[in-house]
Amino acid sequence: MIKKVLKFGGTSVGTIERIQHVANIIKGEVEAGNKIIAVVSAMAGKTNELFNFSKNIDDNFDKRELDVLLSSGEQVTCALLAGALLKLKIKAKSWLNWQIPILTEGEHNNARIINMNVEKINKFLNDGVAIIPGFQGISSEGDITTIGRGGSDATAVAFAKLFDAKTCEIYTDVDGVYSSDPNKIPVAKKIKNISYDEMLELSSLGAKVMQPSAVQTAMMYNVPIEVKSTFTNREGTKIFDQQNIDYSKSVTGVAYSKDDAKITLMGVEDKPGVAANIFEPLNKAQINVDMVIQNISSNQKTTDITFTIKRDDLEKTQDILKKNKNIEYKEITYNDKVAKVSIVGAGMVSTPGVTYKMFRGLADDKINILAISTSEIKLSVIINEENTLKAVKKLHTIFELE
Amino acid sequence: MIKKVLKFGGTSVGTIERIQHVANIIKGEVEAGNKIIAVVSAMAGKTNELFNFSKNIDDNFDKRELDVLLSSGEQVTCALLAGALLKLKIKAKSWLNWQIPILTEGEHNNARIINMNVEKINKFLNDGVAIIPGFQGISSEGDITTIGRGGSDATAVAFAKLFDAKTCEIYTDVDGVYSSDPNKIPVAKKIKNISYDEMLELSSLGAKVMQPSAVQTAMMYNVPIEVKSTFTNREGTKIFDQQNIDYSKSVTGVAYSKDDAKITLMGVEDKPGVAANIFEPLNKAQINVDMVIQNISSNQKTTDITFTIKRDDLEKTQDILKKNKNIEYKEITYNDKVAKVSIVGAGMVSTPGVTYKMFRGLADDKINILAISTSEIKLSVIINEENTLKAVKKLHTIFELE
Repeated sequence: MIKKVLKFGGTSVGTIERIQHVANIIKGEVEAGNKIIAVVSAMAGKTNELFNFSKNIDDNFDKRELDVLLSSGEQVTCALLAGALLKLKIKAKSWLNWQIPILTEGEHNNARIINMNVEKINKFLNDGVAIIPGFQGISSEGDITTIGRGGSDATAVAFAKLFDAKTCEIYTDVDGVYSSDPNKIPVAKKIKNISYDEMLELSSLGAKVMQPSAVQTAMMYNVPIEVKSTFTNREGTKIFDQQNIDYSKSVTGVAYSKDDAKITLMGVEDKPGVAANIFEPLNKAQINVDMVIQNISSNQKTTDITFTIKRDDLEKTQDILKKNKNIEYKEITYNDKVAKVSIVGAGMVSTPGVTYKMFRGLADDKINILAISTSEIKLSVIINEENTLKAVKKLHTIFELE
Repeated sequence: MIKKVLKFGGTSVGTIERIQHVANIIKGEVEAGNKIIAVVSAMAGKTNELFNFSKNIDDNFDKRELDVLLSSGEQVTCALLAGALLKLKIKAKSWLNWQIPILTEGEHNNARIINMNVEKINKFLNDGVAIIPGFQGISSEGDITTIGRGGSDATAVAFAKLFDAKTCEIYTDVDGVYSSDPNKIPVAKKIKNISYDEMLELSSLGAKVMQPSAVQTAMMYNVPIEVKSTFTNREGTKIFDQQNIDYSKSVTGVAYSKDDAKITLMGVEDKPGVAANIFEPLNKAQINVDMVIQNISSNQKTTDITFTIKRDDLEKTQDILKKNKNIEYKEITYNDKVAKVSIVGAGMVSTPGVTYKMFRGLADDKINILAISTSEIKLSVIINEENTLKAVKKLHTIFELE
């Protein structure tokens, strides 16, 4: 008998039919002898609808009342799923945030789960399926709190830790993590096993399957995750600790982000504090700087600094750089049509030649590399945006990901 | 400083604009120095939508989970109204059933409020407006319960009693209780003051302004009610104890119900137990018998018994009467196009000639009376359905209700 946390996102419970389908998935787990804690989101679109209600009343809607409002969405799903399971003769019960209770700290709309009364639920699991709302809890004052949007995967992972569950299965509308976006890169292949680190690199680099905070939480608590589709029976992707993975391939996936822009400051004086002078005002203006590359000075007195930002921030960034008297440089150039392509793999560090293979492969296809940045499990290049898909496909071929 | 319970029904909070309007009504009360407890329903249509969700899953949806599901509707309204008041700089807070708590007993979907922690709310009223969901509570086991549909007015009245409020104002989509349905009888006039008894007679006779259970609760606890419109500024109708009403008029209102049918059993043996033999099987078949009139036997051996039922039940009733061997009679006649018209007034009993005036007035207009039934504050006649509106108008003229 295995204890599992199953998490179903908004699209997985988006209609009555889908809720009934989820009930059947859970029925299968129960009949296989497993103890199930189901964590559910609001039906797709519901949270947005409620949020828009609040916006129509007040752009700065009271945060306490916003939590009361939004938390009702998961309450509805909990009740409907419990009813659907009971209809299938599977014993089940909805447990609301205050009935467990799920204790949180931190501010409204952005709380963190600190504890929950697991004994009550553990006792009930001997009888039936416990259905718990994701994304919410109560404060020490007894007010409803929410975890903040995009925190529902992390909630499920935290529950798995608190319940000491064997695994946390994230049911979603894709059937796993792919070596690249399968809608854009038809040759992309589903990854069977991936480490937390690799998943973090891939999710922050544009593979939008798992919320990064959920992967971080899982890594911190060492909770094995499986991402799988609610709508197919296929095996998903398992995300777990690196040391349990057998790396037959050096590269696990290829991520890319578009809508980037590259700025180069040429002839910057090469002395301590220069970089800080450049990036401090950008940080203050909430401009997110991604890659930063500084070349070695050729004349020992000046250097060139290149960095990438989101294309939308280009004008604002140029403005700041031109107006700021603390920043001295000879020339500023930019390219507003670049993309970042990265290979990610925990096996890269122990496999010689990965870097060379990547550069050679791109050169063979006449793809010019504008900048390079590396980390232990990732190698990123900036290229002209028009070459993005060509590059991603080429890297799939080179590293046998097809 | 007056403490008031204000109750807003589903249509009063049916849109964001209406919730904002309700917030303005409450703002006016607060600025007049009153302490306000607002009891709110789910937004119009919401409870039906949720109920239909449950029906699509299971016709016998689990009652506990149905309460979890339906109670979310009022939670949404509570949060939105609190946010709307805060936007108007009026201090306010939503209090959910479990936060107060509102304790109930009885079964799910049909619970009764037995107590609530009024001190917490009373303390908060010094600071701001307390917003409470109608129609729900929690059981002694800590499960969510609902009061049963149509019980939200009664909930508000019970709250007024528990809080020792000066008055309970029911905001709705009509602007008060009329002497008859103003949509059908243009001469009908709004009643300024009415006693609980009269209101009960009027509501059970077809004036669908107040839920009868709410009037009964108010009468039991002697809580003054005011029914008024959310959408106009006009004064509503006050419902309170009979002895506080100055009866300048003998008749307060004229009620009527259509879709009735009349059945007469002629030549029924005049002995004990005969009536029971007739009505017992009808009761078992859940046929609602309204008026029953038994004439004095002319020959001392047989009698005629007349009664009215809903027209839809006519065929079933005839079937039962014909098949049942315990019932002996010479002949059965029926009229399936009759209506009941009633005058209601607590002053009737002390005013001579009301009965005579009613019969004479109807006779003057050639309206034939098919049956008569009286109680202390009510006089009902059965007439042919086609004469209904003519009779109601005539009674308005006779008793100066225009």
